[in-house]
Amino acid sequence: MKHIGYVHTDITSGFWKTKQDMVAESTVYAVYDRFKDTYRFEALKCEHNADSKFTPHIFWDSDVAKWIEGVAYLLSKGSYPELERIADESIDYMVKNADENGYFNSHYLVVETDKRFTDRSRHELYCAGHLMEAAVAYKRATGKDKLLRLMCKYADYIERVFKIEKSAAFITPGHPEIELALVKLYEETGETRYLELSKFFIDEHGKPLPDGSNLGRYNQDEMLLKDRTNIDGHSVRAFYIYSGAADIALRYGDKELADACRRVFDSAYYRRMYITGGFGSTHIGEAFTVDYDLPSRTAYTETCASIAMVYFASRMQLLEVDSKYADCIERVIYNGFLSGVSLNGKAFFYENPLEIDPDFNNVNYATREKARLPITQRKEVFDCSCCPPNVVRFIPSIADYLYTVDDDTLYVHQFMNSETEYEGITVAQKTDYPRCGKVTIKAVTNGKRIAVRIPGWCESFRLNVPYEIKNGYAYIDCNSESIELDLDMPVVMMRANSRVHDCAGRVAIMRGPVVYCAEGVDNGKDLKNLRISLDAAFTLGDTELLLPKLHTEGYMPVDDGSLYRVAKNEYRKIPVTLIPYYAFANRGETEMYVWLLEK
Amino acid sequence: MKHIGYVHTDITSGFWKTKQDMVAESTVYAVYDRFKDTYRFEALKCEHNADSKFTPHIFWDSDVAKWIEGVAYLLSKGSYPELERIADESIDYMVKNADENGYFNSHYLVVETDKRFTDRSRHELYCAGHLMEAAVAYKRATGKDKLLRLMCKYADYIERVFKIEKSAAFITPGHPEIELALVKLYEETGETRYLELSKFFIDEHGKPLPDGSNLGRYNQDEMLLKDRTNIDGHSVRAFYIYSGAADIALRYGDKELADACRRVFDSAYYRRMYITGGFGSTHIGEAFTVDYDLPSRTAYTETCASIAMVYFASRMQLLEVDSKYADCIERVIYNGFLSGVSLNGKAFFYENPLEIDPDFNNVNYATREKARLPITQRKEVFDCSCCPPNVVRFIPSIADYLYTVDDDTLYVHQFMNSETEYEGITVAQKTDYPRCGKVTIKAVTNGKRIAVRIPGWCESFRLNVPYEIKNGYAYIDCNSESIELDLDMPVVMMRANSRVHDCAGRVAIMRGPVVYCAEGVDNGKDLKNLRISLDAAFTLGDTELLLPKLHTEGYMPVDDGSLYRVAKNEYRKIPVTLIPYYAFANRGETEMYVWLLEK
Repeated sequence: MKHIGYVHTDITSGFWKTKQDMVAESTVYAVYDRFKDTYRFEALKCEHNADSKFTPHIFWDSDVAKWIEGVAYLLSKGSYPELERIADESIDYMVKNADENGYFNSHYLVVETDKRFTDRSRHELYCAGHLMEAAVAYKRATGKDKLLRLMCKYADYIERVFKIEKSAAFITPGHPEIELALVKLYEETGETRYLELSKFFIDEHGKPLPDGSNLGRYNQDEMLLKDRTNIDGHSVRAFYIYSGAADIALRYGDKELADACRRVFDSAYYRRMYITGGFGSTHIGEAFTVDYDLPSRTAYTETCASIAMVYFASRMQLLEVDSKYADCIERVIYNGFLSGVSLNGKAFFYENPLEIDPDFNNVNYATREKARLPITQRKEVFDCSCCPPNVVRFIPSIADYLYTVDDDTLYVHQFMNSETEYEGITVAQKTDYPRCGKVTIKAVTNGKRIAVRIPGWCESFRLNVPYEIKNGYAYIDCNSESIELDLDMPVVMMRANSRVHDCAGRVAIMRGPVVYCAEGVDNGKDLKNLRISLDAAFTLGDTELLLPKLHTEGYMPVDDGSLYRVAKNEYRKIPVTLIPYYAFANRGETEMYVWLLEK
Repeated sequence: MKHIGYVHTDITSGFWKTKQDMVAESTVYAVYDRFKDTYRFEALKCEHNADSKFTPHIFWDSDVAKWIEGVAYLLSKGSYPELERIADESIDYMVKNADENGYFNSHYLVVETDKRFTDRSRHELYCAGHLMEAAVAYKRATGKDKLLRLMCKYADYIERVFKIEKSAAFITPGHPEIELALVKLYEETGETRYLELSKFFIDEHGKPLPDGSNLGRYNQDEMLLKDRTNIDGHSVRAFYIYSGAADIALRYGDKELADACRRVFDSAYYRRMYITGGFGSTHIGEAFTVDYDLPSRTAYTETCASIAMVYFASRMQLLEVDSKYADCIERVIYNGFLSGVSLNGKAFFYENPLEIDPDFNNVNYATREKARLPITQRKEVFDCSCCPPNVVRFIPSIADYLYTVDDDTLYVHQFMNSETEYEGITVAQKTDYPRCGKVTIKAVTNGKRIAVRIPGWCESFRLNVPYEIKNGYAYIDCNSESIELDLDMPVVMMRANSRVHDCAGRVAIMRGPVVYCAEGVDNGKDLKNLRISLDAAFTLGDTELLLPKLHTEGYMPVDDGSLYRVAKNEYRKIPVTLIPYYAFANRGETEMYVWLLEK
């Protein structure tokens, strides 16, 4: 099974075209401006000295690399001379300043020059991985291979230091990422040593150092990856390393590792995922905690973790056919990922909470929670600014998740207005999804069947052709001119597992794959008390936030202002407006709730 | 207005006699044993040297002092030769080891001998205050004045160092307590310099040091006490200093200070109090946070803070007649204070949470909350073990809160089976309160009226005599032989202010002054989802936990085990047993909820 990647697909209009245009017209420049302001590009010149206004940070290169990767995806679909010029210039600096081994790191080359490969927890191989991903994308988009050649040299050097000579102070990186990047480098160059180096990192990860030490649960380091049963520790690191592990399991037919990947995915998807497709419950260690611990207000749910889960899930799709992977990707992209960027494309959430009450922000005085938790408004840049450039590379390549193909079947995982050509296969989708559930698929498949995902959220649908359901997909013999899929998309209320404390007695409102929320700007204050009846009727409202708002009626308790009072059945009806979760915090600082009380 | 103290009142039977017997038969010995094990008594010998097994802690003396004070209250009502012997011996050590100025501190006398009065935040004057309280109580109970004479000398020394010579490194203590203790010393000795020294500390508190620094909000130190509008910072310190402030406001007729006390009380009582009479929302700084921030699971609600609030409220009763003060005391003593001690009297809560789910305790891994939060079981001793001896002194002197008297009225604030004789007044209460609401009061008052509090929780009552209601009290001309008060005491459901996040959609069940809770041991798991209908019928159950359990019917959602599912109106009825909150965590580690979902 293989992906039909973004290269072969054009998103032509609709929801994701709007978002891709936003990135091309706004986000890519906004992120560049902020990174320029904060010297991330200037750092590539490696001119740092004692008088410099800045000190290059150990992970700045990864920020620039993701930005270049995003630019590459844009360049593969259009002409952006100024972006290409900046990318070329940046690459030139890297090539110029790399050492004779291909080693490039704007911190270690000029600041801690004697500390190369001495500290496992300091992102050196993480930066290398992101540079490799950028190199592959840039070559594919532009044909220019300057960075790719540098990265091959760098990879050769890493192989020598870590695998052959074992001369570094550690064996595997504290922050994974290079594992999946080496697989991409292998796919682009055909050089199996890069695949083998990735496998080496995957196999070694979790082995204690000679002194018996390991980096612990936070770094997924207290056991071998093949032995894990749960997603644990730092959420982005966890998904990155398991993306690499799934790559290796697939390419080496490693069943034991594949089983571990499956267990880890299931633990994330069935027990540790927010309804928004957010992952990682706590800001302490940006980490997972325990099953069903999914607090709403202090949800960490880093944007990068949602992106990283998509990387993992999309690799799992190659290991087995199960619609849960595409269901998971869909939940992420329309909710907990997309909330990470403002509607104007210029500001970002690092954390994506499911509940905000600005009146209680000053509680931070006493709880010493991270200053920006609970965050109420997006920011243009963070000190640790991994999320913004991750948005820049994710949205332009979103077509990566549309299709996979094997010897006899073309799998349709997501629904986007698009046109695809790939090894004699042509597919076109026409749809206004997820505004509505109608999708028309025209495909010429060279005799392959088509398997169309029936989303997990969908309770009834119609297809104009005969089909057979298996593993969540409708399998169709592809002699049909045009497949018409019609997914019923009513507004539904969701309940969480009884173990999830913050959801007890509460419902979340969804329409199709989209989670909704109630904001103070529409509904007033103290919305934690807002009750919605299970038989509430909803009407669709305007689409100023891209997807329709929802209107219904709710109930607020009559409060006499006392701290405690005898409970009476006194509620007043209020009109309620819900908006797509991804659009929260775009209209000023205000309350926000995903989980509403059930009346 | 004056209190009729514990000295003049015997609790004869019923609820509080049971608890006083528990202290006399169990708690006082349990605390002594633990303090002996941990060298707190041995420290009084001041024989510490480099080879010692222990180093006396800066606040150990306060632990012993509170224990001696408790013993004094017991001795005032009965004969406890062994306890008296230990107290005498301890006092002998103090007298022997104090220096020529009366200074005694088992840490500073032998450990940091050159650091006396150099560090404001290190409990020196706090310990002195507790020793003074113990000295007064012990003299009243036994007639022995050894400790009292020592403490007078010590107070003279403190006056010289802090007020006259100003030779200490600071002006007012970081941990208040001595302010109210000096007032007791004045009341016992008639020496006005002690009252004036207390006033000095109260007036100076909040003035910045010459270098402009202050100890901030945590220590109620960023403004003058008379300027405060809210209860803030460390909850025990806050209530202790305002107890002293109320003492001074009363005795000096300081209206500005009295107004501040009133504002601070109101902010605590109307906006920052748990329904259990617990105070202090967060373990960070053991402190108050902001109005209506009253999380259930992480409630700090230190036992000492509840006790300290009683001290404060009982002093406010002397400043003005308003039943809110006695209402507050009643809420505290039957709930958030009493939960602090196990039913067998031997184990203690420092924190008193309103919600426990043991399954989520290991979340601590990631949230780095204090190891014992959320605490699930009482402990026998803590490193910082202020709460256990505070229980030892509080329960034996609980009759302090029964009556106040002024020129023409005897105020009946609390209801306990008891007999009182005071300056020609005799009062006897016969009641099974709070098992039921019937109270018979027989009083000979020397022509004073009787004012009987009608509790704030009571919505209907009957009196067998004519009365007039004012400020929450029923005023009765006392020519009646016997006053029969009959307070209706149905089970009621309480709702919290809409600002209190954790109570949204939830009700707390009370009967009379007693808050109830649902425990897992009676009702199964996942009780956060348990719904109770507003029209649920309750029956009274057995009284193995002293007050009756409550039985009713509730609803649990039908959960299919999935993380998220479409919400259906599927509930199963379950029998529900509620127990008095004070009795939670006496039958093993189990879930516990005060706030239950409203069906």
